[in-house]
Amino acid sequence: MTSPERRSAVHPVRVYYEDTDHGGVVYHANYLRFMERARTEMLRDCGFELDRLEQDDGVIFAVRRASLDFIAPARFNDLLRVETEITVKGAVRMTFAQKIYQQERLLCSGEVEVVCLEARRFRPTAIPARLAAAIPLAPLP
Amino acid sequence: MTSPERRSAVHPVRVYYEDTDHGGVVYHANYLRFMERARTEMLRDCGFELDRLEQDDGVIFAVRRASLDFIAPARFNDLLRVETEITVKGAVRMTFAQKIYQQERLLCSGEVEVVCLEARRFRPTAIPARLAAAIPLAPLP
Amino acid sequence: MTSPERRSAVHPVRVYYEDTDHGGVVYHANYLRFMERARTEMLRDCGFELDRLEQDDGVIFAVRRASLDFIAPARFNDLLRVETEITVKGAVRMTFAQKIYQQERLLCSGEVEVVCLEARRFRPTAIPARLAAAIPLAPLP
Amino acid sequence: MTSPERRSAVHPVRVYYEDTDHGGVVYHANYLRFMERARTEMLRDCGFELDRLEQDDGVIFAVRRASLDFIAPARFNDLLRVETEITVKGAVRMTFAQKIYQQERLLCSGEVEVVCLEARRFRPTAIPARLAAAIPLAPLP
Repeated sequence: MTSPERRSAVHPVRVYYEDTDHGGVVYHANYLRFMERARTEMLRDCGFELDRLEQDDGVIFAVRRASLDFIAPARFNDLLRVETEITVKGAVRMTFAQKIYQQERLLCSGEVEVVCLEARRFRPTAIPARLAAAIPLAPLP
Repeated sequence: MTSPERRSAVHPVRVYYEDTDHGGVVYHANYLRFMERARTEMLRDCGFELDRLEQDDGVIFAVRRASLDFIAPARFNDLLRVETEITVKGAVRMTFAQKIYQQERLLCSGEVEVVCLEARRFRPTAIPARLAAAIPLAPLP
Repeated sequence: MTSPERRSAVHPVRVYYEDTDHGGVVYHANYLRFMERARTEMLRDCGFELDRLEQDDGVIFAVRRASLDFIAPARFNDLLRVETEITVKGAVRMTFAQKIYQQERLLCSGEVEVVCLEARRFRPTAIPARLAAAIPLAPLP
Repeated sequence: MTSPERRSAVHPVRVYYEDTDHGGVVYHANYLRFMERARTEMLRDCGFELDRLEQDDGVIFAVRRASLDFIAPARFNDLLRVETEITVKGAVRMTFAQKIYQQERLLCSGEVEVVCLEARRFRPTAIPARLAAAIPLAPLP
């Protein structure tokens, strides 16, 4: 759910066996999967389906940069909460700030920059105008 | 390596953290990934690259059926061996018998049926003739 | 949700980028992940959390056998529905029949046998009695 | 292979179907998997097996921070090369600089900080002395 006041979106993620590793905790690369699910749901909440954007506008979004801080481990069967904000909105790029919590404990925090690409040729292209207009930008802290 | 006498191919797989789960062993779905790697390498050993087959012949292979028997768990850092034979070769289908060992211990055994598809339309189509001719069929037991 | 009348459980699964492959469809091994999520949620609906069962009863469930029929491909952004029934309930084993649909179209059907293991030693052990009593057995067809 | 002169390790990675996504390229989170395989092999080349370190020394390594730059996409069937250097060696931490190439083209570059943990309690602990002595530190650029 995205509220115009908070300008952030919250997405729940349950930790299944598939997400954990031999250490008994979530495998580090999987936080990137959780973050992408949350970005996809944030855009859906704003009215945009990524498969429609690809078919209708010929664009996809690719991750260009990511930085992750792994603070505490998530465990099997945890119900996590991914909070997502858009902190930078450029002509072809967006930066998402994402935080993953288990209850009130921050487990992982990351910044992910995505770039809008022509689906066919993988070249950077402008974010479709109605999407750019609709996505909420987080307030300055 | 595929030898005409044995008519089976052997592919080594190292178990990394990414492959294990909270139980400390390889996550069951990942044996399907290991088996696909071994099928890909078997075809490469026969002289066929799957990306070239897609570009040049317009075909891909999709898994149509799989049955798996999980006998004993593989563990983190194990060096596994996937043995692969082709047991059935039809006009559009092939069946692979695959066994995963850690040293002499059988851990997982499976049968995987793949079907040749037109890459664009996902419709069954004949296995390219030079591939059908080249792939070794396992002898009757 | 599990209803005593239908004795089957339904679990929704959204297809994200992480689930798809180069063919544009869900990678075959990932249906096993979706099926495991659905089994976990079915047990949760019956009042059993797998992490509690491990901590309190010292048991885990491991997949012993799986057979899968891949009928039609699921695509990126599809909202799937996994229907799960328990068809066999033994002292140490359970067999789940699972079907994955996109709307009314059956995409994948499978049978998964799980065995109850002592978490420490990975030896088969009896399914805890209160779980065995609570899980619904599908009616004969 | 790790050479004392170059003080970097090179690990080959083949891209299989499992690694790709609907965009036809390697799914972004999977570069973290490739990088971990390369770190594991670098330590193995130095004479250290992670499962032995856990059993004998009671330590595991967890990723504490990662930053990734996705420069160009890797494609299905590409044979990649992961180059790994250790740039910082502290009492409990190590930082790896890792670059993934397809032939001479740089596809992904990252920095990964790992921390040595007591395997039982997940608390930071000193890197075992013989490992700290053996791992090669990259020369200043």
